[in-house]
Amino acid sequence: MKYSRSFIKTYKDDPKHAELPSHKLLLRGGFISQHAAGLFCFHPLAFVVMEKIMRIVREEMNAAGGRELLMPVLNHSDLWKETGRYDSIGGELIRFKDRKGTEFVLAMTHEEVVTDLARHFISSYKDMPFTLYQIQTKVRDELRPRGGLVRVREFLMKDAYSFHTDEEDLEAYYPRIYDRYERIFRRCGLKPISIEADSGIMGGSGSHEFMLPCAHGEDMMILCDSCDYRANLDKGTGIKPVPLEKRPEDIPPLEKVHTPAIKTIQELTEFFSVNHEQFLKSVAYLADGELVIAIIRGDFEISEAKLTNHLKCFSLELADEMTLSEKGIAAGFISPAGLESIRLVADETVLSIPSFIAGANEHDYHYRNVVPGRDFHIPPVVDIAQVRENDSCANCEKGTLRLQRGIELGHTFKLGTKYTEAMNVTYLNDKGQSKLVVMGCYGLGIERLMAGVIESNHDEAGIIWPAAIAPADIYLLGVGRNLEQARVEELYRRLQSEFTVLYDDRDETPGTKFKDADLLGLPLRLVVSEKHLASDNVELKIRKTGEIKIIPLSSLEKEIAAILHRLKEEEDYFI
Amino acid sequence: MKYSRSFIKTYKDDPKHAELPSHKLLLRGGFISQHAAGLFCFHPLAFVVMEKIMRIVREEMNAAGGRELLMPVLNHSDLWKETGRYDSIGGELIRFKDRKGTEFVLAMTHEEVVTDLARHFISSYKDMPFTLYQIQTKVRDELRPRGGLVRVREFLMKDAYSFHTDEEDLEAYYPRIYDRYERIFRRCGLKPISIEADSGIMGGSGSHEFMLPCAHGEDMMILCDSCDYRANLDKGTGIKPVPLEKRPEDIPPLEKVHTPAIKTIQELTEFFSVNHEQFLKSVAYLADGELVIAIIRGDFEISEAKLTNHLKCFSLELADEMTLSEKGIAAGFISPAGLESIRLVADETVLSIPSFIAGANEHDYHYRNVVPGRDFHIPPVVDIAQVRENDSCANCEKGTLRLQRGIELGHTFKLGTKYTEAMNVTYLNDKGQSKLVVMGCYGLGIERLMAGVIESNHDEAGIIWPAAIAPADIYLLGVGRNLEQARVEELYRRLQSEFTVLYDDRDETPGTKFKDADLLGLPLRLVVSEKHLASDNVELKIRKTGEIKIIPLSSLEKEIAAILHRLKEEEDYFI
Repeated sequence: MKYSRSFIKTYKDDPKHAELPSHKLLLRGGFISQHAAGLFCFHPLAFVVMEKIMRIVREEMNAAGGRELLMPVLNHSDLWKETGRYDSIGGELIRFKDRKGTEFVLAMTHEEVVTDLARHFISSYKDMPFTLYQIQTKVRDELRPRGGLVRVREFLMKDAYSFHTDEEDLEAYYPRIYDRYERIFRRCGLKPISIEADSGIMGGSGSHEFMLPCAHGEDMMILCDSCDYRANLDKGTGIKPVPLEKRPEDIPPLEKVHTPAIKTIQELTEFFSVNHEQFLKSVAYLADGELVIAIIRGDFEISEAKLTNHLKCFSLELADEMTLSEKGIAAGFISPAGLESIRLVADETVLSIPSFIAGANEHDYHYRNVVPGRDFHIPPVVDIAQVRENDSCANCEKGTLRLQRGIELGHTFKLGTKYTEAMNVTYLNDKGQSKLVVMGCYGLGIERLMAGVIESNHDEAGIIWPAAIAPADIYLLGVGRNLEQARVEELYRRLQSEFTVLYDDRDETPGTKFKDADLLGLPLRLVVSEKHLASDNVELKIRKTGEIKIIPLSSLEKEIAAILHRLKEEEDYFI
Repeated sequence: MKYSRSFIKTYKDDPKHAELPSHKLLLRGGFISQHAAGLFCFHPLAFVVMEKIMRIVREEMNAAGGRELLMPVLNHSDLWKETGRYDSIGGELIRFKDRKGTEFVLAMTHEEVVTDLARHFISSYKDMPFTLYQIQTKVRDELRPRGGLVRVREFLMKDAYSFHTDEEDLEAYYPRIYDRYERIFRRCGLKPISIEADSGIMGGSGSHEFMLPCAHGEDMMILCDSCDYRANLDKGTGIKPVPLEKRPEDIPPLEKVHTPAIKTIQELTEFFSVNHEQFLKSVAYLADGELVIAIIRGDFEISEAKLTNHLKCFSLELADEMTLSEKGIAAGFISPAGLESIRLVADETVLSIPSFIAGANEHDYHYRNVVPGRDFHIPPVVDIAQVRENDSCANCEKGTLRLQRGIELGHTFKLGTKYTEAMNVTYLNDKGQSKLVVMGCYGLGIERLMAGVIESNHDEAGIIWPAAIAPADIYLLGVGRNLEQARVEELYRRLQSEFTVLYDDRDETPGTKFKDADLLGLPLRLVVSEKHLASDNVELKIRKTGEIKIIPLSSLEKEIAAILHRLKEEEDYFI
């Protein structure tokens, strides 16, 4: 393709408000432009990359037995009401009425539609297993779109769904998809970390995230520095304080203490001369509207994801002052002592300290000597604590847990019967009994994958596209005032039969063209100059290594093919 | 692919409420299912066809210099307000607010977004020409979705946009796209008729539609039986009655006649003993809210498309009784006589008759001896008449015009400066003068093309897919109780290296499998039976011709390749 006809426009300066390298470089290179917050246009060079990524995704999904289909973006709301997600999902689900007043949603995922398809298709155990997938536009009204292509409001998602007779069959199939996911990422030149993940709004019995470590990522994962334990911060666990074997019996009775003008936890620890761990942290939530108090040792934080999973609630938000005062609780001074009628969730850490300082549910008052079990009833304790940097690894019991930011590239879920139960999808087994169908689902964002590739493959000068998904193989240009353009054109036509070539046919200085070549990041840059032509040579630069080679015209195709082959081998961890 | 794992389910009976053969056969063959009115799921076999169609479209668009990109479905309303289409397009444009209250539309076409892209890209004449295209989900809230895939609410559209320095460059480029459109259709086995078309809501200076003749089509075209004149009914013209050279001067004066209890035109012609052509048909419209009366000779019908174009209005609807009575006009008795203050549009046919019978703007009264120019002022006459079957051809002046129903497969528009003027997209020419960019746009629906293919390629038993876009080359099955399945599986694996094979691995009777093979319509059906295997043969049936051949296993690939090649040659009118 010729530069001048390919809708390419580069910019010298970094765009404002772009923080991630991928966001900056995609804008500077004119690969994308922003239409509105979280909405982008993908220009021709970016679309070639996306096409190549999609081809890899399709090949791997087909190899996992997947069959591609296409479901509509406009979804009738009835199906979403059937699963309850019409009400449980917040404002990110766009709802509207058509001109006849029928309620629709813009699909942000397709469990409802595909489960409905399966419901009409499956009758017997012989109809399973099967896997369906699509690559299709998804819409999510993100409140805060950010990070360029990382968190957007519209994107191409590859979403796959597998259907099984039972959990065993799902368990047997799941690793096949998992392996194909690893292959997809590695064929694109990426080495993400797969971690145990929280299933969130998808539900189900287990899931994995494929996370790309990235300083600007918005997800947080936990990695053990000794074993291979990896988990999402919302899901992971470290070794937690050991519960007391026996509580001392000589703890003085509960004592209410006036604590005026004390505003921070720090002031409170100084007032009582205790450590953070001797405080009982109490947080009041509204879980699907019901008031719930969660308690944890003061040196830990509550994981709202874990709490949501424990409560199996759709929505969880901090309780407002009004709700609290109606129950006679002063916000900021919450304590489970004396609140027997309110649902309590206690983290395991509460059992590790003999007595706590806690709020007294009264403005400017705290309790001293709060003894769990004596001063309030404790339900069976659970894990609702967020892992802390440097906690010990619960898996190997030796290592230390580290926190690492990352970008989630893909997510695989063992959904189990969450959707088939809600939508009554059953089959007859070989004994003629009616059973619920078991499902898995597997998602992956095309644009985000492309952004991840750039996060992992760039330098100061620009992008360094992996050869397998580059917009073209070769950036071709001619330099020198007296160079005949016809010679470059001739080479352009010649190379096109074997390679994809971006020919910079602009009337620009060599300096500008060299800069753009680095910025756009094609694997090879081929310079035609009078000087080298005189000895029937051309100059080839490998973008990744910066290596420059003078190559005879006679063996050009052979040399280029060899270099591209080597680059692809280095990228693909499977070859 | 194996039948049992490919999400295929066929139905014996025709679906209810499906009229078009394509709709019936796609549902019966389990290629598609309806999600909601005008919204479909495309199952794996249909998606393969769509993929193949999209590949052909991409090849041809690339060959026309097009560069593929991707624009968002969610469009910020500001751009649509800039062109005026936010207000001018009716309920088929879905409008909604995001969670922050910003107005968005779901794009039904992308002139606004692509013109905005061009506005940021183009500065000099050197930046043009270029062509951008995408294949992307379009949403239109059709009031009456119908015809299966012919009129839907969501579909994949290939929409292309070309940008030029002037009309001459657009005129020079337009035939390239036009030719590529012809190639796309013919490579898919279709021979549509290209016709002059009305530009409708797109505007611009000229356009062509590619119409597939089809008894169930919802579009109407005019064809001359003698020359190659073809036009959309909304655009075409035939030879119209010749205007009088001179009106007789002895016509009696206007006379008001009481015409009680006369309800139909028929009764009126009998009452006055005249023909239809001696009536002056007057129809009152609201054009963007303004009352307009259109008049035409009584044996003609008004083309609302022509009237809209003439008035350059956004909306045109019949005037209601209330509006008419406020102006002192009795609905059903409209006449231009005595209504000098109301805007009048007169068709040319009004000049062909000396005097007319017309309404008297009063209930149960008509005028006799209405002389245009004498009894009311006539504006310059225009053509707002719909062509009638059997009108004479205005092009060759010999032939007779025929009406033909059809399906619109694609539409190409010379947009001119309609959008670049509204959105102020200019460039500097080689003299440093600022000029408006000139545009063309070119649309084509993927699903509708697939439906068109079936309308043109089916029989009583099912679909007959053209080999170039069939879901697979071969339908493979084994018959006979004692046949070893392993022999069929072996052949399945062997053939897959050269062809795409759908292997019917179900535990069904041969009769069922034969029926499904015909219904699903793959080009070749390959039957493995004990009898033929005994002599190292298999049986091959060509779906299109019904021809059955016994072929030696040893030369099977060669024979199949030859037959497929021949089928493709017959389909593709360009080879």
